[in-house]
Amino acid sequence: MERTWNSCTSPTLLLDTRIAHRNLDRMYAKAEHGGVELNPHFKTHQSAEISGWFAQRGCKRITVSSMVMAEYFADAGCTDITVLFPANIRDINRINALASRIRLTLNVISLEAAQFLHQHLKHPVTAIVEVDAGYGRTGISVNDTGNLSALLGFFREIRFPFYGFYIHAGHTYDAGSSSEIAEIHQQSLSALAQLRNDWTAVFPELKISLGDTPACSLIDDFSGVDEIRPGNFIFYDLTMAAIGACIFTDIAVCMACPVVARHENRNEIVVHGGAIHFSKDWLLQDSHAGTTQMVFGRPVRLFIDHWSAPLPGCYVRKLSQEHGIIKLTPQEFDQIRVGDLIGVLPVHSCLTADCMGSFLTETGTTIDMMKWRKMA
Amino acid sequence: MERTWNSCTSPTLLLDTRIAHRNLDRMYAKAEHGGVELNPHFKTHQSAEISGWFAQRGCKRITVSSMVMAEYFADAGCTDITVLFPANIRDINRINALASRIRLTLNVISLEAAQFLHQHLKHPVTAIVEVDAGYGRTGISVNDTGNLSALLGFFREIRFPFYGFYIHAGHTYDAGSSSEIAEIHQQSLSALAQLRNDWTAVFPELKISLGDTPACSLIDDFSGVDEIRPGNFIFYDLTMAAIGACIFTDIAVCMACPVVARHENRNEIVVHGGAIHFSKDWLLQDSHAGTTQMVFGRPVRLFIDHWSAPLPGCYVRKLSQEHGIIKLTPQEFDQIRVGDLIGVLPVHSCLTADCMGSFLTETGTTIDMMKWRKMA
Repeated sequence: MERTWNSCTSPTLLLDTRIAHRNLDRMYAKAEHGGVELNPHFKTHQSAEISGWFAQRGCKRITVSSMVMAEYFADAGCTDITVLFPANIRDINRINALASRIRLTLNVISLEAAQFLHQHLKHPVTAIVEVDAGYGRTGISVNDTGNLSALLGFFREIRFPFYGFYIHAGHTYDAGSSSEIAEIHQQSLSALAQLRNDWTAVFPELKISLGDTPACSLIDDFSGVDEIRPGNFIFYDLTMAAIGACIFTDIAVCMACPVVARHENRNEIVVHGGAIHFSKDWLLQDSHAGTTQMVFGRPVRLFIDHWSAPLPGCYVRKLSQEHGIIKLTPQEFDQIRVGDLIGVLPVHSCLTADCMGSFLTETGTTIDMMKWRKMA
Repeated sequence: MERTWNSCTSPTLLLDTRIAHRNLDRMYAKAEHGGVELNPHFKTHQSAEISGWFAQRGCKRITVSSMVMAEYFADAGCTDITVLFPANIRDINRINALASRIRLTLNVISLEAAQFLHQHLKHPVTAIVEVDAGYGRTGISVNDTGNLSALLGFFREIRFPFYGFYIHAGHTYDAGSSSEIAEIHQQSLSALAQLRNDWTAVFPELKISLGDTPACSLIDDFSGVDEIRPGNFIFYDLTMAAIGACIFTDIAVCMACPVVARHENRNEIVVHGGAIHFSKDWLLQDSHAGTTQMVFGRPVRLFIDHWSAPLPGCYVRKLSQEHGIIKLTPQEFDQIRVGDLIGVLPVHSCLTADCMGSFLTETGTTIDMMKWRKMA
């Protein structure tokens, strides 16, 4: 049965491929202009078909966030994959199986993991070392010279192939403005420059990688950086728009949600589209009443092959398992009927795509994503 | 390959079937003692195999939250299914297909939906009417006599089969204590008694249904109620424990997460287990510093066929796509190594199960859930 955007009968993740291609073109142009390689992160789209869009642009090396994703893209023909998640040594059998068939780079951030890999690897693997210049999620602190020296000393001693350093400055996601992102980016660049300075004599080939979509979208200065590894930029989302990393018309995915109830006394509608479709990430947004409220999405008007700007003053107030509760202005509320379809821009496109598992494009084509659950 | 709880190599949702069976036995005993039918909600486990556990206890009628779930359980042999989500009239073809093969009850909460169904149904469907006595998600307000009369008058006029009224008092999930749950429950009972009083002359067979796990777990007084439809009680979770609807040893699911990094300066570990595994629901919890913090899970020690109580003072501080960041006490931190496995009790078991798609039991058996994404 042919499906179009305005004929959806249940929650459906729409992908505007024209916007996605434009986002790709822009990031590739930026990488070329900045003299850095784009080594894209595929955790956002998780799709073999979409990996082809990157291959068309010359992409030969990719980044993922789990072994199952690496296996999936290896099956799809990718031959050089970096798993930018701290190496899980319990997965050694899968690591060996994968390393036997592709060029595999793992994120090694402790001496224990390095020693374990050295003892148990049956095929060559390269190590990239994630460093932390302030995000506080993971990676070795750039100031922790003790652990850095122990780990890199071990690499040198046993001739473990060392790729270089990587920073994911994820605190740009919480930044309040583009100037704050620029400031965080400068801290990353300084830290990475210092590391290159410290280690280039020992590892003259070492590469410097940088990962976050906000900085890669907003900043032109990549001095001292060899490659960038953003992922979210292909779709963007409300979080990226809120911090100024994109504008609303750069957002390439939108959930089509059937309207199932109207609640006139509170100008709210209920849609089919809940936490199992969007996941449950949120934005904080100032309300008219001067308080801060959580927002789980922004409604848009949906047409046969495009969607409108976010409806002013309207937002998804709550998500439960299947329900989305959308607060509308009285004017918008008056125009909506039970049985209509409304679009919702997601707060976090990576999690929303992961929940849905496929996309419906503006031409009515379905694009499948990795069925990671069945491969775990 | 045989899998045991302590041999997991990647994030795995463990199900202690002994606890789940005990939870089932307790709720069945409670229903029997309270003189109400248990018409269980299957949105939590979403598993044909687990539906068999209910069938063994005499269950003949079930409740679900979407058409795709209804189709799945119809395929698994269920012949009497209520979809407790406001009827999505865009789904009329699926409604007709399903109504041709099972006894289907839909949640009809507007005259528009009722009229549409009346015009387009090809097979008999029964209507249940969700009412709202204060939750504010959906359902017709119990005080909205205008809309209630219009809808029920229409049912009478066209002889649309009317089942009765249903309340999901979901605000018990946000309750601060069991006494607050009891108070909400009394409001539900009063509202339902009033509705029965108002409509029993017109619909002498009407049934009164009540849905939320907190009230069904804590309250013994079901006077005026014909049936209960809780779902979460089979697994429970940290949210239910926090409001007193269960104790920690009633929680039947736990995520096994590999430890991939240690951060000594902040007593934090990083595990593989993120928002794509847990979804991203949270609890608010008072910290030692007197502030309120978000908690995304609680770590437990994992053994071959059971897990410990939650480790005191330890919690999941943050989830990103694949990462879980767990704050530990210094004592617990000292005992954990990279490559260990740690258990995490989920904040919201329904969403976590939906993310994972299958369970690993204490005997090493895998139980599959609905592959709803492929059926949408």
